Amino acid sequence: MKMSADLEANFAKAKDSVFQVAKKGAQVVCLSELFGSLYFCQKEDKKYFELAESIPGPSTKVLSQWAKELKIVIIASLYEKSEKKFYNTAVVLNTDGGLLGKYRKTHIPDDLEHYYGEKFYFSPGDLGTPVFKTPFGTIGVMVCWDQWYPEGARMLAQAGAQVIFYPTAIGFQVKGPEAINKAEQEAWQIIQRSHAIANNVFVAAVNRVGVEDHLNFWGTSFVADPLGRILKQASIDKEENLVVDCDLNLIEEVRKDWPFLSCRRSDLYGKS
Amino acid sequence: MKMSADLEANFAKAKDSVFQVAKKGAQVVCLSELFGSLYFCQKEDKKYFELAESIPGPSTKVLSQWAKELKIVIIASLYEKSEKKFYNTAVVLNTDGGLLGKYRKTHIPDDLEHYYGEKFYFSPGDLGTPVFKTPFGTIGVMVCWDQWYPEGARMLAQAGAQVIFYPTAIGFQVKGPEAINKAEQEAWQIIQRSHAIANNVFVAAVNRVGVEDHLNFWGTSFVADPLGRILKQASIDKEENLVVDCDLNLIEEVRKDWPFLSCRRSDLYGKS
Repeated sequence: MKMSADLEANFAKAKDSVFQVAKKGAQVVCLSELFGSLYFCQKEDKKYFELAESIPGPSTKVLSQWAKELKIVIIASLYEKSEKKFYNTAVVLNTDGGLLGKYRKTHIPDDLEHYYGEKFYFSPGDLGTPVFKTPFGTIGVMVCWDQWYPEGARMLAQAGAQVIFYPTAIGFQVKGPEAINKAEQEAWQIIQRSHAIANNVFVAAVNRVGVEDHLNFWGTSFVADPLGRILKQASIDKEENLVVDCDLNLIEEVRKDWPFLSCRRSDLYGKS
Repeated sequence: MKMSADLEANFAKAKDSVFQVAKKGAQVVCLSELFGSLYFCQKEDKKYFELAESIPGPSTKVLSQWAKELKIVIIASLYEKSEKKFYNTAVVLNTDGGLLGKYRKTHIPDDLEHYYGEKFYFSPGDLGTPVFKTPFGTIGVMVCWDQWYPEGARMLAQAGAQVIFYPTAIGFQVKGPEAINKAEQEAWQIIQRSHAIANNVFVAAVNRVGVEDHLNFWGTSFVADPLGRILKQASIDKEENLVVDCDLNLIEEVRKDWPFLSCRRSDLYGKS
């Protein structure tokens, strides 16, 4: 999805997409990180705090209606305002429209130099790494920078997640060296495929496209299977909605050959 | 390296290779897993226990002479017999010929169906994950199946490892489905590149080649840099010695942009 400064238009576009993929059979739909607005963390400006809202709140009310009407699960990334703090939060709406739960982004980039100045806007998540039991399988959600941490995926898989979703907003530096841009994008895909491999789960990375100020969001949303194979991958610069069939039985099949989880040496890993 | 049933020939070939790469400037040389013999773990046969030896012992004595003569560090995988148990052990010989230390393989595959029946031959490692300070940098060693575990690489990087070596013996199932063989080899490279990325270290995977009974070892030894880029990669079926220049300054450079280690949320990860 490509976002604009028009908040209502973003929501309308998201609705169109959600209804389209639901018609194609999608059961769990994940929108990209902070889909309701441009990626405002490229600079520090207090005015953007006004984008934050309570959860449940106006956005979850709308999303909940979509989920209920379509009888699907929706994962959406919102800017959350709690009583005292602000968070980069992902919500999970269930098929009955109920709020199944939420996850607050754990690892917050503090990198204004590269236009990811999120510490100004978000407190680090304090809800741990919950998994959500949906009618279509047990899912986990991590948000963007979390994707670089094998610890997060491991915790979700150990808690039973079968699919891990990564709503994301990541792009090329518009003025960055091409070689580094290329390496970063490749690394982004490799690290997430590695979570699928290490844990034998499905991984779905959902990124935005379009140039916004200093960042050219690199899209290439993809779904990897429990062997790390890419099942489908979206365009690098065009809007595209992927509908991907994930046979959850494959998880158990792969784990018979690759019992990585059951052969962990937790006695050695210690607390670190 | 391709191994044969002739133990002396394997050692002689290893010596030739070590001396050749040292002449080309190699400072730290890593041999592949259990380079002294065929990969005997494809079946369970007590006769192979006779290959085990003490450490220090006959092999380290020879390797130590090479290291001292060439003033290099040598990493070698040996079948270790301790007083009570047997281990799949990697030794590190220093430039003065001294035994800098050893690491005992932590994760032991118990998969005779796919011809990796190692639990019959090796006890799980009990030495933790030491790092070794050499004149050429701080290194860590994991052995083969350890490579699937992000925990191992993470512990080594946190302890200061700049390069992580993975002596390995892994191959295609000779009678395996081609699609699965291909996926497994790709996953093998991705998971190890992901360790380089997640920890911003160099990773060197050192595998054997050649068909031995049910396994066709897939070679493709490679070195990845702290961005996960492959610097060099060896042949899939021919013997080849890679000499790869690793600029250790790159580690610090990359960590300025990608401070993954310093932004870990160890408060959340818990003991698992």
